[in-house]
Amino acid sequence: MSKFTVGIINVTGYAGVELARILRNHPEGRIAWVTGRGAAGQKLDQVFPHLLGMDLPIVPEPPDRADIVFSALPHKASAEALLPLLREQIKVIDISADFRLKDAGDYPLWYNFKHPGPEWLGKAVYGLPEMYRRKIAAAQLVANPGCYPTSAILALAPAIKEGLIEEDIIIDSKSGVSGAGRTLALNGHYSEANENLSAYALDGHRHLPEITQELQLLKPGLALSVTFLPHLIPMTRGILSSCYARLSRRIPVNEKSKQVILKLYQDFYKDEPFTRVVASPAQTKHTSGSNFCLIHPTVDLRTGRLIVISCLDNLVKGAAGQAIQNMNLMLGLPETTALEALAMYP
Amino acid sequence: MSKFTVGIINVTGYAGVELARILRNHPEGRIAWVTGRGAAGQKLDQVFPHLLGMDLPIVPEPPDRADIVFSALPHKASAEALLPLLREQIKVIDISADFRLKDAGDYPLWYNFKHPGPEWLGKAVYGLPEMYRRKIAAAQLVANPGCYPTSAILALAPAIKEGLIEEDIIIDSKSGVSGAGRTLALNGHYSEANENLSAYALDGHRHLPEITQELQLLKPGLALSVTFLPHLIPMTRGILSSCYARLSRRIPVNEKSKQVILKLYQDFYKDEPFTRVVASPAQTKHTSGSNFCLIHPTVDLRTGRLIVISCLDNLVKGAAGQAIQNMNLMLGLPETTALEALAMYP
Amino acid sequence: MSKFTVGIINVTGYAGVELARILRNHPEGRIAWVTGRGAAGQKLDQVFPHLLGMDLPIVPEPPDRADIVFSALPHKASAEALLPLLREQIKVIDISADFRLKDAGDYPLWYNFKHPGPEWLGKAVYGLPEMYRRKIAAAQLVANPGCYPTSAILALAPAIKEGLIEEDIIIDSKSGVSGAGRTLALNGHYSEANENLSAYALDGHRHLPEITQELQLLKPGLALSVTFLPHLIPMTRGILSSCYARLSRRIPVNEKSKQVILKLYQDFYKDEPFTRVVASPAQTKHTSGSNFCLIHPTVDLRTGRLIVISCLDNLVKGAAGQAIQNMNLMLGLPETTALEALAMYP
Amino acid sequence: MSKFTVGIINVTGYAGVELARILRNHPEGRIAWVTGRGAAGQKLDQVFPHLLGMDLPIVPEPPDRADIVFSALPHKASAEALLPLLREQIKVIDISADFRLKDAGDYPLWYNFKHPGPEWLGKAVYGLPEMYRRKIAAAQLVANPGCYPTSAILALAPAIKEGLIEEDIIIDSKSGVSGAGRTLALNGHYSEANENLSAYALDGHRHLPEITQELQLLKPGLALSVTFLPHLIPMTRGILSSCYARLSRRIPVNEKSKQVILKLYQDFYKDEPFTRVVASPAQTKHTSGSNFCLIHPTVDLRTGRLIVISCLDNLVKGAAGQAIQNMNLMLGLPETTALEALAMYP
Repeated sequence: MSKFTVGIINVTGYAGVELARILRNHPEGRIAWVTGRGAAGQKLDQVFPHLLGMDLPIVPEPPDRADIVFSALPHKASAEALLPLLREQIKVIDISADFRLKDAGDYPLWYNFKHPGPEWLGKAVYGLPEMYRRKIAAAQLVANPGCYPTSAILALAPAIKEGLIEEDIIIDSKSGVSGAGRTLALNGHYSEANENLSAYALDGHRHLPEITQELQLLKPGLALSVTFLPHLIPMTRGILSSCYARLSRRIPVNEKSKQVILKLYQDFYKDEPFTRVVASPAQTKHTSGSNFCLIHPTVDLRTGRLIVISCLDNLVKGAAGQAIQNMNLMLGLPETTALEALAMYP
Repeated sequence: MSKFTVGIINVTGYAGVELARILRNHPEGRIAWVTGRGAAGQKLDQVFPHLLGMDLPIVPEPPDRADIVFSALPHKASAEALLPLLREQIKVIDISADFRLKDAGDYPLWYNFKHPGPEWLGKAVYGLPEMYRRKIAAAQLVANPGCYPTSAILALAPAIKEGLIEEDIIIDSKSGVSGAGRTLALNGHYSEANENLSAYALDGHRHLPEITQELQLLKPGLALSVTFLPHLIPMTRGILSSCYARLSRRIPVNEKSKQVILKLYQDFYKDEPFTRVVASPAQTKHTSGSNFCLIHPTVDLRTGRLIVISCLDNLVKGAAGQAIQNMNLMLGLPETTALEALAMYP
Repeated sequence: MSKFTVGIINVTGYAGVELARILRNHPEGRIAWVTGRGAAGQKLDQVFPHLLGMDLPIVPEPPDRADIVFSALPHKASAEALLPLLREQIKVIDISADFRLKDAGDYPLWYNFKHPGPEWLGKAVYGLPEMYRRKIAAAQLVANPGCYPTSAILALAPAIKEGLIEEDIIIDSKSGVSGAGRTLALNGHYSEANENLSAYALDGHRHLPEITQELQLLKPGLALSVTFLPHLIPMTRGILSSCYARLSRRIPVNEKSKQVILKLYQDFYKDEPFTRVVASPAQTKHTSGSNFCLIHPTVDLRTGRLIVISCLDNLVKGAAGQAIQNMNLMLGLPETTALEALAMYP
Repeated sequence: MSKFTVGIINVTGYAGVELARILRNHPEGRIAWVTGRGAAGQKLDQVFPHLLGMDLPIVPEPPDRADIVFSALPHKASAEALLPLLREQIKVIDISADFRLKDAGDYPLWYNFKHPGPEWLGKAVYGLPEMYRRKIAAAQLVANPGCYPTSAILALAPAIKEGLIEEDIIIDSKSGVSGAGRTLALNGHYSEANENLSAYALDGHRHLPEITQELQLLKPGLALSVTFLPHLIPMTRGILSSCYARLSRRIPVNEKSKQVILKLYQDFYKDEPFTRVVASPAQTKHTSGSNFCLIHPTVDLRTGRLIVISCLDNLVKGAAGQAIQNMNLMLGLPETTALEALAMYP
């Protein structure tokens, strides 16, 4: 017996369809409707044959209320579609970036649009349960984090909050191609992306202000200087972020440093259901299809630098899975409901 | 509350570890022990970090009884390990080929060993629920089908049983590299298999006698002449079999033939939980991680040939998933228990 | 000192850019101009950074005559662009399908357009040097074969011409994704094509009439019944065709059959510079980047069926390389000029 | 008419076989012999079918002198095999690490063996033509650089030599799987490496002392603090290194910085045949199969950090191609001989 209804706006992108896949096995919720423009009129399992038996019609616009609504629209369109629902006091989880940044002035700068509902930016809760669990549980509007920011913030939060590192931070992130979405583009064309490797957004990626905002909030006194560089990797799913920062002078660098740091990270996340600190370097395949973020901190003893490797599935913990984790919190359900799947290997 | 215990012999190959992954979320069963030679002494999630939190120790030999035992050993070793358990009347599902062939004389020919327990060949039930559901439910020993045979038999069974085709059959199968297992070999080395495509076993693959035996049993009067050629595809999971046979003369070849054949296939499998006949050509990605076999039959109107495309995940419906489907049947549980996951896409 | 000038119409597709790459090291020819619509105004190495130092401007239309002109336009557009040049008696190699079929009536049927210059279909020579070397050398207009047809015809020609097989032929072909070109499409989107495998064009692929026409010409008395089914493989380059046909009754099936057939194939192609009969199954990686077609014939002794595996690089022997081989013949140069590169492995 | 003879020791690894492939089209040299242990007795094109027509027998030991000898043996074995040849005054290019480090004490530390010929470490010339062209031309023994060091040193040399950056340097390198060689290992097993991404050697990779040694030599006064972290990428060929360092205070950070740095890099390499500074971020596919190293320097204006991206093919400029470039220099031939091939794309 389902206890609540769910609506998905723009089910036809990779985040949307992943929401549908995971929610299908949620014991408490029922997908009441799904929207999608190009595919409107078709059934879900016609457009996405892997969703066998999910024969919900795709409709152009939300036909109805629902207890909770996810938006997987692109930025700008998402805010526009959600504002009416927000005013009706419907609970909303926005997978786009439209409510992640606190400063409305960042939207014209990074996303090329003037925010249509800046009054909601203060009310939105950044949907990273590891940082804001209680606020999420009480929120009407959750801004689901970006995939890169999830991997970067979880990797660096213990170090920043505990004052382990200096302010110079380099985040070298690598992502599978599904991160670029289902919209056709030359750099996502198989023959271009396969057997190829590239850095992109060298002038500044849109996830940078989000990463900086959240890291800075963890230690307001520290003047962070963050370089974030994303890379496109020839695989479908997965993000690995390699983070580098010099240890603060008060941390002695010696044989024991690695264990000290590892222990500190383990303590930091010891009660987290989905963020795990591991003793050997994580690999993206260890998280493929699961909602886990795996973190491995270590120390480069020659230079006194902290290195943190974090891995996650960009479509699960980096998007749909984390959104459902947030939904569970918002509805007072066990946080791990419908998210029990382990990673698929090999 | 788990109601029964499971043992897994040789958990360290891809079929074994996939059994562990799926069984972890089985509501009724509990893995009591897992064996593995090279990795004995380590914990399951040390060797396989994606099995987060499964800290069962890997032991060298079965330490105990269990309500049901899976063997994921290679052929020959599997029969040797299972015979003692069989004599103790333990329920057994063998993922190797050791109890699939009815004729003991086939083992020296195709697998290079004399079968150590030929008396069990008659008692073993071939674990294809679509064909032998009732017998499986009553069996002590189930021989879990090979990955290629599952795809080929399910693709051709309706046509053969309904007398749609002549005796000349060509099965051109394509498999991802995980089908070759976790044992190191040059043709499974990344730099050799990636961006490469090859046919292999042109002199006869070990799955041929299994395919022929089972197809022939469906229509004893037909003298089948089967060519089966497997190909290695640069992807991890998935099998697609393209099957070709001339329509028997009594089937008229005209514009309606495709619909007639499609309808006939749909009727044949209409009550199956995991074998689905689809109206457009299936793709392996539609089954990745799920226990489904998708089948698309059509007719080449120019030549009067039946073409059937079947897709499945070689490690799920082609191995561990089907084994658990058999376990559910043998224990009187709902057949789909723990197998509800949809395919992971993209 | 270059002795002749070359023009390339539509350099911006994969066949066009491969022509440019290979011709750059041709000792006798010089690329005089290249055309391309979307990229007009840019330089070749701006659009294709791997063509380092080739700073030829891309122009919208042929600016000039050239001693020989390649067209890598899509079908229909190619015929339209080439007819004026043909009338000026310029030597032309058309990589599209527009002059491959002898029967003008096939164009509306298979390519959805009425041929604008049917009088040229009889004059065009099918550019498969192994079959038509002398005619190519004397031709003004060469219709460069399709990638699938090259692999299929070379695989089956000896068997058909020598009367080894019966008329029922199945060609199960597998191609890398670059065969679908550089134009964006969902089935060529990385996240859709990667880790996926599918059959397509089950109702009849455009290369079927080309294959049938050429095979039939080899043995006019035989009423061929050809099924051709292409598959999309998650790799960039390469085609492997698996061809099946029953041996004609006059060929005895016994232990010696494989050697007899192998010898016969080797003799058939013994003087060919680029088509090689090999004693073990060819793999696509053995031809990646080279102009070779590798062929391995064998016999399924259980069923008396001939199996032939052929491999080639769809963009070299399947397109640009074969076009340059034809150019060399048309200009009286050594056939292998600029085509000496071995395959890149691994 | 070949003018000199070449011997290849251990032709059967990926560097060795790539040497054979490239040298086959060298107009001045002739491969006189090739050695290989496991494959001894077979012909080159039997073991490597892509080397069609290269039917040189593989012998267990060098049978003869040659004008120049390449060793593609693993470290330690290489030094042992080469010392006798060196004493006979044969010209040698060692692709292993055995003569790259100046300090004999580094070998036990990083490679676990005591160097058997430390007197040669001072005589060996580090085979990076961009740095040591003249010395290479006069050398008897050239130590061919590692793949990672080639990418890192070429990326950073202009910045260090011109004093653009401070001493803290982070090199985040990503390599295709062929860098790990042809020897079987679990992390190079297709099903493990495919769709996976990992960092490795977090405790210090063997290429670190080589990178530090060479960078330090460029600016003896600067006390470099280098962190180098390699990552394994699911593709066969290619290395991309992302290098980060803070600009020294004397370099103003403003809108013009990017152009200033780009120009400076372009000037630095302006006469190099194979190292090219490009104005947009290089991708590995732009170098696949070619001997080019492409470098893109830019500035992160928010933090004042220099970012340099460098790309190359690990088996060509990162191994066999650079070795042949060195050979050309040592023999007084044009440096680009046999290395004219452009990258293969797509």
